[in-house]
Amino acid sequence: MAVQTDSATTSTTSGSSGPDLGPAAALSCRECGERFPLGPIFACEVCFGPLEIAYDHPAGDAQALREQIESGPNSIWRYAPLLPVPADVSDKPSTNPGFTKLVRAERLGQELGVTGELHIKDDSGNPTHSFKDRVVAIAVEAARSFGFTTLSCSSTGNLAGAVGAAAARAGLRSCVFIPHDLEQGKVVMAAVYGGELVGIEGTYDDVNRFCSELIGDPAGEGWGFVNVNLRPYYAEGSKTLAYEICEQLGWRLPDQLVVPIASGSQLSKIDKGLQELINLGLVEDRPYRIFGAQAEGCSPVSRAFKEGHDVVRPVKPDTIAKSLAIGNPADGPYVLDIARRTGGAVEDVDDERIVEAIKLLARTEGIFAETAGGVTVGVTRKLIEDGRLDPSLTTVVLNTGDGLKTLDAVASTTGPTAVIKPNLESFHAAGLA
Amino acid sequence: MAVQTDSATTSTTSGSSGPDLGPAAALSCRECGERFPLGPIFACEVCFGPLEIAYDHPAGDAQALREQIESGPNSIWRYAPLLPVPADVSDKPSTNPGFTKLVRAERLGQELGVTGELHIKDDSGNPTHSFKDRVVAIAVEAARSFGFTTLSCSSTGNLAGAVGAAAARAGLRSCVFIPHDLEQGKVVMAAVYGGELVGIEGTYDDVNRFCSELIGDPAGEGWGFVNVNLRPYYAEGSKTLAYEICEQLGWRLPDQLVVPIASGSQLSKIDKGLQELINLGLVEDRPYRIFGAQAEGCSPVSRAFKEGHDVVRPVKPDTIAKSLAIGNPADGPYVLDIARRTGGAVEDVDDERIVEAIKLLARTEGIFAETAGGVTVGVTRKLIEDGRLDPSLTTVVLNTGDGLKTLDAVASTTGPTAVIKPNLESFHAAGLA
Repeated sequence: MAVQTDSATTSTTSGSSGPDLGPAAALSCRECGERFPLGPIFACEVCFGPLEIAYDHPAGDAQALREQIESGPNSIWRYAPLLPVPADVSDKPSTNPGFTKLVRAERLGQELGVTGELHIKDDSGNPTHSFKDRVVAIAVEAARSFGFTTLSCSSTGNLAGAVGAAAARAGLRSCVFIPHDLEQGKVVMAAVYGGELVGIEGTYDDVNRFCSELIGDPAGEGWGFVNVNLRPYYAEGSKTLAYEICEQLGWRLPDQLVVPIASGSQLSKIDKGLQELINLGLVEDRPYRIFGAQAEGCSPVSRAFKEGHDVVRPVKPDTIAKSLAIGNPADGPYVLDIARRTGGAVEDVDDERIVEAIKLLARTEGIFAETAGGVTVGVTRKLIEDGRLDPSLTTVVLNTGDGLKTLDAVASTTGPTAVIKPNLESFHAAGLA
Repeated sequence: MAVQTDSATTSTTSGSSGPDLGPAAALSCRECGERFPLGPIFACEVCFGPLEIAYDHPAGDAQALREQIESGPNSIWRYAPLLPVPADVSDKPSTNPGFTKLVRAERLGQELGVTGELHIKDDSGNPTHSFKDRVVAIAVEAARSFGFTTLSCSSTGNLAGAVGAAAARAGLRSCVFIPHDLEQGKVVMAAVYGGELVGIEGTYDDVNRFCSELIGDPAGEGWGFVNVNLRPYYAEGSKTLAYEICEQLGWRLPDQLVVPIASGSQLSKIDKGLQELINLGLVEDRPYRIFGAQAEGCSPVSRAFKEGHDVVRPVKPDTIAKSLAIGNPADGPYVLDIARRTGGAVEDVDDERIVEAIKLLARTEGIFAETAGGVTVGVTRKLIEDGRLDPSLTTVVLNTGDGLKTLDAVASTTGPTAVIKPNLESFHAAGLA
């Protein structure tokens, strides 16, 4: 199935019968570089390495491309020329995620001793309030191109809602697999979009094993698992975070980025996105540093970074940051490489500091972050205290989800500051004037 | 304190020492028309009627104003020339709400038998995921102008979060009053922003009575209660919904709007906003109809509309749509007038139909609405069934909040569609292939 890399076989602009995925030219192995035609595959047939999208990028001048982007919709589809999607993608029903706020965080910066520019990229503004809407929206386009009629995933949280919402909006069937004993709140968020929601009698690992079995079975024909057989497409959605940050900074690279690590895919695709902008001449090429952030209770990449290893030893997660709790992160080695190459680092914080950081961000900037946002803000604080993050530069910290989804994390330490009787005497006695 | 209405005393563009609130010229009584200088007052000193903002609108041509708006920020501040805020408002720290998505709802339209254009104005995309961010953002500017240092409100839900977040971001102290026995989830959402959160030993009515007492007391000096002494400013925030809807339709009035009714302020300010756009030449003047939506368990305005009354008889609310549960809506008479004048109506739906409508919207468009969104979608369905809303026209239905905030409303009727063992046999037995 491996193909030559000459343009005749990989171009999708030639009116061939291949899927129309815009500038996406082929799938390329991240390990051995072998190329394959675009399709619902995710592992190299030569070396079993992970596949990613290779592009025929537009050849026009940077200024024209920039103007095209700026006149596009207020969503990730403004970057359609750089994504594996058809050019008319914004005409199709989609949740239209992205172009979320880049918030200048002066009050947080003051508390952290930042003298340069500190920004929060706040992805809680996405349609289902996490960055997952970005990656799922790209997966939907791939699913449409490959003729899939069911959108599927295994999930314990954010992904379930993103898949359910995106499939509903696109008019696709969805089937989401969850552990049968998930908390009721998360079940409601996944079930409300009306797709199939299947509880599996077993652990999350059992759910994943079952999904892999289903993909290999005739029963799974026509099913697009967003983060399995559609993963190369899905993963590209994270590049849009890099595009947006640079555009919102006035087409400028940040000096430093603090990015959460679950599988590590988001971090490595952000790096890919920044490199693309440089190569296309959309931003000036200058050094940037990428810092990865983990919860101490699930910090295999941080540990490998600190120990100087190139491989990541799996761990059993135990942290309140459930959306980052992947003990065996697939992109771990790529993250280590990027952090070292750019002069960044990978660091972790414990659950107590995660909660403190959630409250710090809420108190200073009015942004209520998911636990993953507590991880990045907490790690930022730690890196500044350690002198590894330069507080005089332009720094962007990612918040990838909404605090409404992880209320439990702060519930036990958050409450009324006073309880009084409904009269002025009681008000004064409480020292509230 | 009443002043003449000549421009010399009411203009704020003359470099006088009055507050800089942009085009806002004076406060004007909605009943007797008496005018007062801009200040933190909310009731007419002559007739005790409610006050609203009167404007000196820009005199430039419509095309120039339209271009100024279109080149502005992706928030309500693009409409600064039409709001009681200083011209440089977007340079100040704010949660920058607004410019939320107007979603073309074709799949919902098909289910409802709509042959024209159906749109959802989805205000769940605001910073704290309800339309309250709009009104609070305007109140913050008024508070700054009047030198208030504490932002306050009584609340049982959305408003508490909006005030907490906006004050945090603006660097103001906040003090939010809630009934002491509020559900923990709502307490967390209100408390996380780190302001004072005061539980009052009493009912919500006791909380409100206490707040009124505090405003009249020296202890309340320097306190801006967003929906009491800042109410005329706060209420103007709802006009931005009208502006955005028309701009997002391509500077065109919708034919029909379905708006939820709590106090009725939002509906009456949307009408005010539409009239302003017509008067300024930003949209073509043609008929539009405004429909008000209530929950049956709190439907005083709907009842008055059906009975042909001009006054609204208060009720004791009993509905799952808590954010609309105002039994004595201050703007009720204005709503009745607008619905009748524009050829609209006021209708209500019961809790069961509210839940059905939440699920219908989620299933067809991937939008998970708060109960208030279930009310508007449910009423839209009812009005189409009754033939009172014309399905061949352009209709905009408001969703003013996020389903994550009212999970309980759908929890008991939403869950997994199947529970299976982690194997293909069980999968097939459940008929999921």
